[in-house]
Amino acid sequence: MDDARFGLNRRVRLDGPLALDSGASLTPVEIGYETYGTLNADGSNAILICHALTGDQHVASIHPVTGKSGWWERMVGPGKPIDPERHFIVCSNALGSCLGTSGPASIEPATGEPWGMRFPVITIRDMVRAQALLLDHLGVGTLLSVAGGSMGGMQALEWAATFPERVRSCVLIATAARHSAQNIAFHEVGRQAIMADPKWNRGDYYDAEPPAAGLAVARMAAHITYLSEAGLTEKFGRRLQARDAVTFGFDADFQVESYLRHQGISFVERFDANSYLYITRALDYFDVAAEHGGRLADAFMGTATRFCVISFDTDWLYPTVEGRNIVQALNAAGAHVSFVELQSPFGHDAFLLDVPAMNRIVDGFLRSVTA
Amino acid sequence: MDDARFGLNRRVRLDGPLALDSGASLTPVEIGYETYGTLNADGSNAILICHALTGDQHVASIHPVTGKSGWWERMVGPGKPIDPERHFIVCSNALGSCLGTSGPASIEPATGEPWGMRFPVITIRDMVRAQALLLDHLGVGTLLSVAGGSMGGMQALEWAATFPERVRSCVLIATAARHSAQNIAFHEVGRQAIMADPKWNRGDYYDAEPPAAGLAVARMAAHITYLSEAGLTEKFGRRLQARDAVTFGFDADFQVESYLRHQGISFVERFDANSYLYITRALDYFDVAAEHGGRLADAFMGTATRFCVISFDTDWLYPTVEGRNIVQALNAAGAHVSFVELQSPFGHDAFLLDVPAMNRIVDGFLRSVTA
Repeated sequence: MDDARFGLNRRVRLDGPLALDSGASLTPVEIGYETYGTLNADGSNAILICHALTGDQHVASIHPVTGKSGWWERMVGPGKPIDPERHFIVCSNALGSCLGTSGPASIEPATGEPWGMRFPVITIRDMVRAQALLLDHLGVGTLLSVAGGSMGGMQALEWAATFPERVRSCVLIATAARHSAQNIAFHEVGRQAIMADPKWNRGDYYDAEPPAAGLAVARMAAHITYLSEAGLTEKFGRRLQARDAVTFGFDADFQVESYLRHQGISFVERFDANSYLYITRALDYFDVAAEHGGRLADAFMGTATRFCVISFDTDWLYPTVEGRNIVQALNAAGAHVSFVELQSPFGHDAFLLDVPAMNRIVDGFLRSVTA
Repeated sequence: MDDARFGLNRRVRLDGPLALDSGASLTPVEIGYETYGTLNADGSNAILICHALTGDQHVASIHPVTGKSGWWERMVGPGKPIDPERHFIVCSNALGSCLGTSGPASIEPATGEPWGMRFPVITIRDMVRAQALLLDHLGVGTLLSVAGGSMGGMQALEWAATFPERVRSCVLIATAARHSAQNIAFHEVGRQAIMADPKWNRGDYYDAEPPAAGLAVARMAAHITYLSEAGLTEKFGRRLQARDAVTFGFDADFQVESYLRHQGISFVERFDANSYLYITRALDYFDVAAEHGGRLADAFMGTATRFCVISFDTDWLYPTVEGRNIVQALNAAGAHVSFVELQSPFGHDAFLLDVPAMNRIVDGFLRSVTA
């Protein structure tokens, strides 16, 4: 395919303007994205994959900073449920993030400087609107499916609410229709940790050192919520890190401490602290029901979109009850919806891991939509 | 009573030396404490109350810094299960804390300066040993009971393991026999938040500003674990703080954010950041089984102490399974033990709140031990 719009590591600058929920508008809108596979003649095989809070467009390709393989290669790839041999797959970096899509680290046209905290506060719906601009650019009208876990699932749900005519099906994994008080509370801790770091400097640090210590603490706090208590016990328990006895000091005596510190330190190499503020804010603002008069079902009344909802029994970040709320609303709206709670010891992170039942469900669902 | 050892707002300086689990020893040992009621002629009515991580000796008296009433006045007071009319009640500030008992903010005799991070790392067992010194000083031989919730329950359990002949009964509420990987993980986040604050200055801040921002973040993260998801939803949900709509900014739009920020800010006025490091470390090191060859029951084999164990159904910090582990070990050791899981929507903090069933159980238990 010679069309420069398609392939890995793409970037596009769209004029927009993108009207945002805040009332502000953004122009231009830069989007970093990747495509896999080929759009078929009738344009019926496009699948949009939406990533989670700190994810990226490298769903099935090497991450340019970490060198790690794509974050959802268990789900996306040849022979997988989402298959470039059969599907035209799009994954774009979310609005507000920092891997090629407009966010606080991008240059503000009016000043020629990084936006910092002058970047407008965005919502999950704004992320979806940006993706719609990208799909227009790529010549994709209707999506066979939009799929995602965690914040990716929220975007997928928002797609079905905002552009129902463009979404034939929706795969929602380990997600919720709104952020709970506890969800908001954990994010607020992370934001305060970043803002407490003097290097944050009210978001103006792009010509200096970033607030690495604060961002690492934010990541550590969030990371605990991605794992289950049982999973942490199984993986680490009270085992010591390369020592036979506790040191009666403040080094990382325990493996779980060492692991968390590593999670924090490695995160700051690949993520912008201001992006973390903006995207957590978008998540906390997320409430599909509130956008539709307070009743979630009203967001989907009469929809023709088909839904597949999956939760995990040990996920306490977006527990099964959140999936059930979505399913009840979809049923009340008369939608076609299937719902499965899967077993996994790994908590919220399970959607990123090897869960054969999840793959079988997504595969069967997508094939039934295609049929 | 004219004896200056007894009453509110007491302080004593004991020579020790106090031999610590780390191998270090501490001298002198200062202890801030309070007593309520009168020790009876045969010394059979003494109850030791142990406080939680950030608690203090003001169990039923006004806190000198905050001006708030005692932290357990629902349990301790005239007509309450622990009653100064009937009991001689002792509550001391834990070793390592900052309200009158030796800790990192105390003066190191060798230097005349605050200990800071030169203070020896302590354990829950060291806290208990310090309390034993205090009881010796007060002329208390055997305790009718030692009672506490959370870290207070850990001290009470450690009392029964370390000084079984001095403990006739033990009330363990919302507690565990060891810290889980998830417990350690949350504490490590808090410690890293403090240490990331430049004002922490490796613990040497007593002649400057304290690391208030880092300590506030630590408190915020911990505070989430004290509440249940359902409790947060009931108390705050997604309600906004004194505004009709979100502001598309980073102020505390949501009540839960405002509440958490307040928890963080008010905490730094009453607590020392280094004490927070030391006490969380003591908690993470806590593992009664490990002190006794790996089997919890071996810590209590043949004990004559009677135990009352209470957990709360929504406590996810020290959930019911932790209480059950204690009860199983006590049963295996042939101990007398009663165990109740109580219902409360308020998570771990329930032990501090108005739970009539908890009071009835503690009252009945203590009366049965006295009889």
